Amino acid sequence: MINAYAATEAGGKLSPFQYDPGELAPDQVEIDVAHCGICHSDLSMLNNEWGISQYPLVPGHEVVGTVAATGDMVTHLKPGQKVGLGWHSGYCMSCRPCVSGDHNLCPDSEPTIVGHHGGFADKVRAKAPAVIPLPDGLDFISAGPLLCGGITVFNPLVQFDIPPTAEVAVVGIGGLGHMALAFLNAWGCKVTAFTSSEAKREEALKLGAHETINSRDSSEIKAAAGRFDLVLSTVNVALDWPNFLGTLAPKGRFHFLGATIEPISVDIMPMLFGQHSISASPVGSPATIAQMLDFAARHDIRPVIEKFRFDQINEAIEHLEKGDARYRIVLSH
Amino acid sequence: MINAYAATEAGGKLSPFQYDPGELAPDQVEIDVAHCGICHSDLSMLNNEWGISQYPLVPGHEVVGTVAATGDMVTHLKPGQKVGLGWHSGYCMSCRPCVSGDHNLCPDSEPTIVGHHGGFADKVRAKAPAVIPLPDGLDFISAGPLLCGGITVFNPLVQFDIPPTAEVAVVGIGGLGHMALAFLNAWGCKVTAFTSSEAKREEALKLGAHETINSRDSSEIKAAAGRFDLVLSTVNVALDWPNFLGTLAPKGRFHFLGATIEPISVDIMPMLFGQHSISASPVGSPATIAQMLDFAARHDIRPVIEKFRFDQINEAIEHLEKGDARYRIVLSH
Repeated sequence: MINAYAATEAGGKLSPFQYDPGELAPDQVEIDVAHCGICHSDLSMLNNEWGISQYPLVPGHEVVGTVAATGDMVTHLKPGQKVGLGWHSGYCMSCRPCVSGDHNLCPDSEPTIVGHHGGFADKVRAKAPAVIPLPDGLDFISAGPLLCGGITVFNPLVQFDIPPTAEVAVVGIGGLGHMALAFLNAWGCKVTAFTSSEAKREEALKLGAHETINSRDSSEIKAAAGRFDLVLSTVNVALDWPNFLGTLAPKGRFHFLGATIEPISVDIMPMLFGQHSISASPVGSPATIAQMLDFAARHDIRPVIEKFRFDQINEAIEHLEKGDARYRIVLSH
Repeated sequence: MINAYAATEAGGKLSPFQYDPGELAPDQVEIDVAHCGICHSDLSMLNNEWGISQYPLVPGHEVVGTVAATGDMVTHLKPGQKVGLGWHSGYCMSCRPCVSGDHNLCPDSEPTIVGHHGGFADKVRAKAPAVIPLPDGLDFISAGPLLCGGITVFNPLVQFDIPPTAEVAVVGIGGLGHMALAFLNAWGCKVTAFTSSEAKREEALKLGAHETINSRDSSEIKAAAGRFDLVLSTVNVALDWPNFLGTLAPKGRFHFLGATIEPISVDIMPMLFGQHSISASPVGSPATIAQMLDFAARHDIRPVIEKFRFDQINEAIEHLEKGDARYRIVLSH
């Protein structure tokens, strides 16, 4: 039996929930959960904001732990090995994205918390390709948030061959954005943070930004016109898009990482004169997650976390829902 | 004196117009115009649709001819040499885009027909870097439209490293689109044309498309969901964007080449799940124009043209304005 925490209805509190995961399939891995981050998408799923939640719902998709058992076909993981599990708990392994190394774009991927019980538990199962060995030297307790939030901000640097000479800005210095600042700084880029408050300005500079722009001051944004090779937007609220898009340098890219629900209105002509791109991407492939973890270990990049015990889980969720988390929450047994 | 055709007011007819271009500057080239294409942007400028027209206005920016004279500093061009001139007649040569080889993105570039007299004339002048030698083997009469329309559709293949294995679609089979089909076919791609009529379907297949999709049949577009690595949109009218964007394959790019004035509404979530990009670009740099001309000569790519004499210029413009041109018009002396 697996001892988990589940919600039984949209918006419901989490309570202890036991389930029998059955026999371990040949391609599965069972992980002893040590720590699990809480991500905004756990909240979205708990509240059925995307209309795809199934209850009882066990959230949790920023897992670090040790391999408890492996199925008969699993050769690359051994019991006791430290591993991580993120948004995906499995891939079809046969579609064009999967065979191209883009498993994160697999249309038949299995998300860890959609129709599958996640990591708010003592154990969690996943298909072996989604279980990523942790490199030596990675801080174990804070590594969980790298598996979803971290890879989400790291992936575009790999996907779009961003060079260390690039000038990059981050919009939204929260759970995702604070990790983006650290990764971009270590990547060698010139890093600017769009921040909404003086308090966050100081924080952003400590986290890796070289300078900041007040995101509520349209004249400051206008003064940055034509500057950035890449802007990473981690927010899910509507912004003054023409003004923000105007900060792109020639050939610049405005890249969305947040689940921006409201459609954005795009003027083609300014994009045409500057050869601009607008794009978006979700998490990353197993290979890119492994690269990201190696990079984080080498540069000692750690998400800034607040620690809660698993039995404080509802308190922790409330803290995140209020917008008070600085910057990621990690649950531990 | 240069003998040109000019309009003296927005929407006015063209009539003979003589002007004295003054002494040839050290960095200038004077071209004896042999042939000049008519581009839709000549019409937009004649009608002051962009609010930047200056009258008397001499249109014409798809020029082929021979070098008549060169300024003292010009070393790479000789009198008598066959050359082409496109949308730009000069660049600042010192901004970041210019020194990076992206002259077409120079914010201080000099467009051939904006505050400068263009190629509807016996002679036209330009700064030397904008004057491109024509390779041997290029069909001289039909080459003009390559210098603006041709480079516009060719440039994204270079900019975005489109491989010959890509599946590419073209929206709008007109002045730009018909050249896109020919270039993409020679580039080795699988080519699909979105066409609005049965008559255009047959044409598109002859021009280089391997198959066609009826752009007015939303079920046919839906059936192409997830297929294209690149879609080149050459139209300047609003389309059913969500449906068209849905035809992108994972990592696909929807690229705008037409002067689409009406903003488009973009849903970020489908872009995020597919890692899609939306982008736009204008013409190309001198180096890319030279590559494009070499490629066109090697693959015998010729715009499909209708020929008019310069003294039939108003008739030719009326023909284009009616949408009757198949597919580009070239004026000759």
